[in-house]
Amino acid sequence: MAEPSLAPLMLGIAGFGTVASGLVRILTENREAIFARAGRDIRVKRILVRDPGRQRAVSVPEGAALTTRMEDLFEDADIDVVVELMGGVDIPLLLLERSLGAGKHVVTANKALLAETGNRLFALAAEKNLHLAYEAGVCGGIPIVQTLRDGLTANRIQTLVGILNGTSNYILSEMSTKGMAFDQALKQAQALGYAEADPTLDIEGIDAAHKLALLIRLAWGVDYPCSRLSVRGISGVSPLDIAHAREFGYRIKLLGHARLVGDCARDSGIEAGVRPTLVHESLLLARVGGAYNAVRVEGDAVGSVFLHGRGAGDMPTGSAVAADIVSIARGAGPNNTGFVRPALPGPARIIPPLETYSRFYIRLMVSDTPGVLRDIAAVMAENGISIAQVIQKDQAGGSYGGEAGDGRAAPGVPLIIMTHEAYAAGVYKALRTLTDSVVVHEPPVHYPVLVKRS
Amino acid sequence: MAEPSLAPLMLGIAGFGTVASGLVRILTENREAIFARAGRDIRVKRILVRDPGRQRAVSVPEGAALTTRMEDLFEDADIDVVVELMGGVDIPLLLLERSLGAGKHVVTANKALLAETGNRLFALAAEKNLHLAYEAGVCGGIPIVQTLRDGLTANRIQTLVGILNGTSNYILSEMSTKGMAFDQALKQAQALGYAEADPTLDIEGIDAAHKLALLIRLAWGVDYPCSRLSVRGISGVSPLDIAHAREFGYRIKLLGHARLVGDCARDSGIEAGVRPTLVHESLLLARVGGAYNAVRVEGDAVGSVFLHGRGAGDMPTGSAVAADIVSIARGAGPNNTGFVRPALPGPARIIPPLETYSRFYIRLMVSDTPGVLRDIAAVMAENGISIAQVIQKDQAGGSYGGEAGDGRAAPGVPLIIMTHEAYAAGVYKALRTLTDSVVVHEPPVHYPVLVKRS
Repeated sequence: MAEPSLAPLMLGIAGFGTVASGLVRILTENREAIFARAGRDIRVKRILVRDPGRQRAVSVPEGAALTTRMEDLFEDADIDVVVELMGGVDIPLLLLERSLGAGKHVVTANKALLAETGNRLFALAAEKNLHLAYEAGVCGGIPIVQTLRDGLTANRIQTLVGILNGTSNYILSEMSTKGMAFDQALKQAQALGYAEADPTLDIEGIDAAHKLALLIRLAWGVDYPCSRLSVRGISGVSPLDIAHAREFGYRIKLLGHARLVGDCARDSGIEAGVRPTLVHESLLLARVGGAYNAVRVEGDAVGSVFLHGRGAGDMPTGSAVAADIVSIARGAGPNNTGFVRPALPGPARIIPPLETYSRFYIRLMVSDTPGVLRDIAAVMAENGISIAQVIQKDQAGGSYGGEAGDGRAAPGVPLIIMTHEAYAAGVYKALRTLTDSVVVHEPPVHYPVLVKRS
Repeated sequence: MAEPSLAPLMLGIAGFGTVASGLVRILTENREAIFARAGRDIRVKRILVRDPGRQRAVSVPEGAALTTRMEDLFEDADIDVVVELMGGVDIPLLLLERSLGAGKHVVTANKALLAETGNRLFALAAEKNLHLAYEAGVCGGIPIVQTLRDGLTANRIQTLVGILNGTSNYILSEMSTKGMAFDQALKQAQALGYAEADPTLDIEGIDAAHKLALLIRLAWGVDYPCSRLSVRGISGVSPLDIAHAREFGYRIKLLGHARLVGDCARDSGIEAGVRPTLVHESLLLARVGGAYNAVRVEGDAVGSVFLHGRGAGDMPTGSAVAADIVSIARGAGPNNTGFVRPALPGPARIIPPLETYSRFYIRLMVSDTPGVLRDIAAVMAENGISIAQVIQKDQAGGSYGGEAGDGRAAPGVPLIIMTHEAYAAGVYKALRTLTDSVVVHEPPVHYPVLVKRS
């Protein structure tokens, strides 16, 4: 029953930072178990670094050598797989193109690279019939790429919604549970290493948009340029709205969402974006705390599947990179076009944000005078928006989170509106009208709402 | 870039009940998408039924014929894959043995068959280098088999814990949210089709034990006979304990659990079983409602991964069967020994339940007299059990759920103890001593506790 033993699978790794160190640790510490599962040994031959003299947290594996020459990865006939863990876009793109060109399988955790270069690398891998594996690029240790490609492969995917960025989720969780202001929570995330010195990619939703573009490609086999995703980050989320949302039974989460409108992604369309969203507390997504990631997928056959785990970190991400490597070692056939095989994905038909609909949370700072609600309700009705619930607070808006704590006159009292399902176009038009109204004191705040299905 | 198109993959399906109907619907309705993802067409040639004249919910697919002869599946040279969806053990075993013997790949949703026949079918499939796929057998639509085999393949799995039976979870959820008694919730589950007329397999934890044995095989590559699992069902769970658990911030869930003790499953050991457990409300497992299933896996690299979805039903289970079929169609190599390849799993070293430890919830019905707590605390201390929290109720135990509502004298007042971590042997010994004590009026109730890790 024993199969003839195969030659070891040889790796060239580009980069020796956090994730590469995690990968090397996993391959070393779990070598026996991985051998048993892969059916062959997996060895590192070369690691590409900038500075070979630098002290490292993890030792160079037995039999491996450091190099500063990129060519040492793809020109070495012994190397079967090039593992790109460098970060950045231009150099990794060059490395992966040349590696695929030289007949190497490639594994990467680089979502920015894959999302921003569209079909380019996928097309090259498909042409060469080589693996282009990127499980680690989408939500770290959560096996979502594999789940979409294999586990739910017989489903028409209807919606995808997820907490795709751990840094943002950490910040929003701290704001929500401890009443912190955004700046304070961000500083804490930076101090703990959950956020970069320049946190823009994370807090402005760009990292989540990269992952969302890859998820859309997997789910529907279409190319949705991430530059065309509607993206709104969390830097404007106020403790005031987090507190109001809680009163209604919601948490504010940064969600990436995508929904198939109609039956087929090319003929019909995809509505997608990244934005802070009110999530009903009865949903598992509302319970995702700290730096965790989670994705909920709905398929026509399977119903709803929810996956939760660590989206970043050396070991969880290394675990996903290692899973891709083992899959290559086992000799599974590549499936590199991001799921639809053999054709490459065509462009998605993109549903513009204004044509989408959902429930909305709206906060207006209004004068505390009779007739205000009547005037606002009239504007809503004119724009086809049906109101589900209204709460008018009697305290000043500035009583939360230190806003308007500068001695200016209080900017009115908060009026919170939860709408029934409404088209975004109508809501935005109503809010523009209200912004110009004398009874509304500040630009309105608005977020979509993810409700529990009945 | 287009690959030469492959011949269709031909299926013989055994059974045409709920799951088979779901599978046929999925293969028909999503045929185009499945073709794109599998790289070839998938067609049904034969469906084995008892009564070909019976009216069916789903029509026989184009090109397929019904048959009553088992041989028509494995003697037909055109058929590549035999899909067993009959239920029962003896006839499916015969069918799958003869199908593997005839060189057919096999797919099954039959956890009882796989769990109860141990290595037998796995050995045969490995010997013949054929697929024995069973994603649908463990938690229906949740891709947990694939996640353990592929996604977490580079991890040493440390613990596995899951809600593996939707019927039990539905009943406990109804008892918890609506204060129903067990019998009432069971009747409702039967009326809604969530429970069978004979619910024993579900409510006594046997179905969960079948799934747990398969999960242990996947996670650790060892054969743990399901007959040796410690199994306790939910028929004895009282609304009184559900209410007390809630007061402490816990839900009572039927959990399958397995934990690696030491570093390696063969040298060290596995502690495993199925039992009602108090789950802290901060854990996602506590939020799993209705007939859903969920599994939490902890690996040394990935940390915690949590998967949630529908564990039963025609379409979710059909979705998992279809995923296995697509994976065979794609030509991935089989990996049939339940994960450790190429050797077959050896036996697990089983940690006896008495040697395991956890926190415990204990309810005693005691006399409402001074000194009772002192006496009980003394027995606990003698057995090495440290008490974390005690609540003594002043109402009679019979005030919940109609217990002791028959006019007998109230059986004392409930005394609830939450322990720190303690060995089961010590707890059971203490409870035996207390059962004999004059101040304790009923056999004590005890459940292990799953706490939030700090």
